[in-house]
Amino acid sequence: MNSSALPHPPLPSDRIEPDVTEDLAAFRQGFRRHAAGVAIVTALGPDGGPVGFTATSLASLSAVPPLATFNIARSASSWPAIAETDWVVIHTLGVRNRSVAEKLAGDNSKRFEGDHWYPGPHGLPIIKDVTSWMVGRIVERIPVHNNAVVVVQIEQGSIGDDDNALLYHERTYLMPGDPA
Amino acid sequence: MNSSALPHPPLPSDRIEPDVTEDLAAFRQGFRRHAAGVAIVTALGPDGGPVGFTATSLASLSAVPPLATFNIARSASSWPAIAETDWVVIHTLGVRNRSVAEKLAGDNSKRFEGDHWYPGPHGLPIIKDVTSWMVGRIVERIPVHNNAVVVVQIEQGSIGDDDNALLYHERTYLMPGDPA
Repeated sequence: MNSSALPHPPLPSDRIEPDVTEDLAAFRQGFRRHAAGVAIVTALGPDGGPVGFTATSLASLSAVPPLATFNIARSASSWPAIAETDWVVIHTLGVRNRSVAEKLAGDNSKRFEGDHWYPGPHGLPIIKDVTSWMVGRIVERIPVHNNAVVVVQIEQGSIGDDDNALLYHERTYLMPGDPA
Repeated sequence: MNSSALPHPPLPSDRIEPDVTEDLAAFRQGFRRHAAGVAIVTALGPDGGPVGFTATSLASLSAVPPLATFNIARSASSWPAIAETDWVVIHTLGVRNRSVAEKLAGDNSKRFEGDHWYPGPHGLPIIKDVTSWMVGRIVERIPVHNNAVVVVQIEQGSIGDDDNALLYHERTYLMPGDPA
């Protein structure tokens, strides 16, 4: 380990009061090294309009029953929808979906401007041409500070044309490479 | 979308009783298309010995405070430790860590046989030569069916030598490829 790459010396293991600056440095440096798959989560807002966002936190929780999790800031533009609705759509993305990933991570007033989506089951917004979409019922919303962990039970879905999975790492969208 | 790739016709959107077979097919097909970064989570078991597992569910929850989540089956060999302890270590992995990722996903009686780890802060098992490790305090354990979502607040850590991030996709360990 190259501990010297840290901006501060190693911390004592028995400190009582967390050092927020140190904690943040460890967290940021650690997660900078972690790569993630890219997904889009959509829902219907309180006004019936489409909302959604690009997420790198999608994870499987169990196969039986089919459960998945994602994380969201409760300050996010989509949170009022996620807080109130029973249903979301989780989309897995391929490299061909890079531009829609950027769109759904951009200005929230423009995320559904265009013909890149259509109303699907329950009227939910379905992003076109993704590698898969899954309609899920929200079964848990766990607030933690100003964020929430959302647990979804998948109830139906559709698979799209295959593609290289879209990845996000070091603030860059990537495609998978060779076997490790 | 190639809906015809599904083994069954699309489901009605208003069904009351979930069809477990359909739900599972949608879930499995969807998550097969999703790629993930690979991490290792370690802790001390009730007997004081090291436990740990390879995880593809590690996700950032917030930067301030520094929070992360991972998912675990409550049938997993590491669950008794995770259920009882306050502390875990989250390790991000590079391509050079592929064999330890496989070891920590294999026979749980052999995961700590060898010199690939050492006791670190709080006596916690630290995997050697990873791209980063972060010591976290468990702040939430949310049981969902036979699984749990675990929320961790990062309190310290260390960064290792850089490497290509280790990915898992289509049941294969991969390295990152070209920009998408």
